[in-house]
Amino acid sequence: MAETTTERLAAAAAVIAPSVPASSRSAIPSFIVMDVMRAALAAENAGRSIIHMEVGQPGTPAPKAARAAAMRALESDTLGYTMALGNDALRLRIARHYLDWYGVRVEPERIAVTAGSSAAFVLAFLALFDVGEAVALPSPGYPCYRHILSALGQRSVLIETGPATEWMPTAEDVARAARRDGIKGLLIASPANPTGSMISPERLQELTAACRAHGVRLISDEIYHGLTYGHAAATALAHGEDAIVINSFSKYFSMTGWRIGWMVVPQDLMRPIERLAQNLYISPPAIAQAAALGAFGAGDELEANRSAYAANRALLLEELPKAGFANFAPADGAFYLYCDVSDITEDAAALAGTLLVDAGVAVTPGIDFDAERGNRFLRFSYAGTNADMAEAARRLIAWAQRRR
Amino acid sequence: MAETTTERLAAAAAVIAPSVPASSRSAIPSFIVMDVMRAALAAENAGRSIIHMEVGQPGTPAPKAARAAAMRALESDTLGYTMALGNDALRLRIARHYLDWYGVRVEPERIAVTAGSSAAFVLAFLALFDVGEAVALPSPGYPCYRHILSALGQRSVLIETGPATEWMPTAEDVARAARRDGIKGLLIASPANPTGSMISPERLQELTAACRAHGVRLISDEIYHGLTYGHAAATALAHGEDAIVINSFSKYFSMTGWRIGWMVVPQDLMRPIERLAQNLYISPPAIAQAAALGAFGAGDELEANRSAYAANRALLLEELPKAGFANFAPADGAFYLYCDVSDITEDAAALAGTLLVDAGVAVTPGIDFDAERGNRFLRFSYAGTNADMAEAARRLIAWAQRRR
Repeated sequence: MAETTTERLAAAAAVIAPSVPASSRSAIPSFIVMDVMRAALAAENAGRSIIHMEVGQPGTPAPKAARAAAMRALESDTLGYTMALGNDALRLRIARHYLDWYGVRVEPERIAVTAGSSAAFVLAFLALFDVGEAVALPSPGYPCYRHILSALGQRSVLIETGPATEWMPTAEDVARAARRDGIKGLLIASPANPTGSMISPERLQELTAACRAHGVRLISDEIYHGLTYGHAAATALAHGEDAIVINSFSKYFSMTGWRIGWMVVPQDLMRPIERLAQNLYISPPAIAQAAALGAFGAGDELEANRSAYAANRALLLEELPKAGFANFAPADGAFYLYCDVSDITEDAAALAGTLLVDAGVAVTPGIDFDAERGNRFLRFSYAGTNADMAEAARRLIAWAQRRR
Repeated sequence: MAETTTERLAAAAAVIAPSVPASSRSAIPSFIVMDVMRAALAAENAGRSIIHMEVGQPGTPAPKAARAAAMRALESDTLGYTMALGNDALRLRIARHYLDWYGVRVEPERIAVTAGSSAAFVLAFLALFDVGEAVALPSPGYPCYRHILSALGQRSVLIETGPATEWMPTAEDVARAARRDGIKGLLIASPANPTGSMISPERLQELTAACRAHGVRLISDEIYHGLTYGHAAATALAHGEDAIVINSFSKYFSMTGWRIGWMVVPQDLMRPIERLAQNLYISPPAIAQAAALGAFGAGDELEANRSAYAANRALLLEELPKAGFANFAPADGAFYLYCDVSDITEDAAALAGTLLVDAGVAVTPGIDFDAERGNRFLRFSYAGTNADMAEAARRLIAWAQRRR
């Protein structure tokens, strides 16, 4: 299938003319945690031992039942395209999940299986918001929300949160942003990334009401549901059918690299979402859908994973203060500790670099999640093994002692 | 994890306020082939026997070597997120593929592994074109190109092709569209969907030169490379490093539902593409990357698949004329026959419906690919088994005989 030599020579001699430059919409920041991940990998490749507290993903593989289902699919299924909104069996099972977990009835027809929650955000934003329209986001928050909006030509309006409001937007914030910025949407996440904090059912209901009153569509990112250490997380679906709920098999179900998630969609948005999914994704990965269906049968293993996170969390809340990291946001859920380090530095990004090099511990600077105040914060992910977390604590304490 | 009864009652009683309606950007047409696929499935579920000639996907699973690699990954790998641009081993192997197949040297750093070519199109369009900018597309062509552009706020400028130019845009078309419509990009596909026709290396070189002369970025969709039945397909990379080349494991490698593909990116666009990939996709599916690496070792099986398509193609070119389907675009590659049916009907969509119901054969009306002239065309996919294609031919001939 080789080209002719003449063509190869022509190619080699081709004068590179002035090219079309990159678009301005592509000038979004990188997702810094991915860059930290790369720096950590580079250090490892250079022979260093690095404990990973930077990446928001479980250290565990998909549960056994999920892997067994994937094996069966590999053996018996052609694994071609599925329907754009996913296999019926999986949509049905996800609908049942809402009854099992929350006592909320959801029709399977309102479930869209997606290529991870990443695809769900893109689909939700495209289905709801035209170019130039504004969406309110909590800050700190998952950086990809605002970068995706920006790449899609939409605007984000940041709502600063803090300890006074349990790091969550309030009904007053929604009213103000609607009045001042004409927001069309509000995105919230509970448990939240990077803080781990959660919204109470009462305040979630208030937020829902505020969104309705101001003609704002609520998008509820519930991807850390199931990973809670006190009371369970509330779903926005408990307060009506007009919110878009986004979830994923990545976190509780421990399936990050499979790229499989879902959204629950109000009936009037189903067809726009389906058309967008057909055109932009064709279908979610078939083997991941088979594995995800299997994952629902893995209750014990998943609860064991959660217990391990709970143990990690308890260990770090005990040990990290000995290294000078003590000022955490309420660590209600997910697997993050968000730590105010302003008593150590005003440059958390530099501190993260120092911890990587001097302590062999990779963490993420808050700047990824909060451009304004984030350089006073570090995010520690405790999704790793208990042994790794214990070792990280030892290294950080030793680093702090050397520093004194 | 159930909500309280009070909350459930509150939810049930919630007054649905006027909601944020769907965006106007989401009002793209559905990908009609997916709707045909659903109608065909519904007919099957109702007990009908349907031969599938509507969907552009192999009837074969991923090759054995790919499935074996996936099994090994399932057993030994955590399958978490990978780097946003994909695993190094796979990027390296894809780079070698260009040397093996085309004699073209490509640095692995210029390879981005993507979640199917679908993700590659989104990334290319976002990296290159701002809101409102225009991209020239061949018509007929893959409908998702223009629907994705439209969803992303970009414009498409259709270049009508036909038998006179082997169904490919010409250098003159590029010059005209640059002058008249200010296009910033040109997308071509060879072998093309739906026609199966191919561009000659000479004309590809002319197109490349025309793009350079007019400051237009060339995007070359090469996802049907390898599936050719005369001479091999030429890659745009043979004519320089400024084109974006998009490819996929879906077709030649028979891995549609795995959602894995790649793009070759000019050096200056690598970082924008990486940032977009980090934010919009996080990473391509990990197990699909493992399987794709394995697929490169499946040469014999893939060539056997191609031989089966060649046999299907020969059979249909022989038999379909007996059913009145004779006027095909040059069927150089891919697994499609694009048939002018204007001597039978001016409503090919209705004819497709008739063939589904009366002959039990699902085909795609051309309207999906060409809004202007498509209702005079049907696309027959011959990616199925030889037995199915023979049966389809028998059914179509019998249908034509009943019709006389």
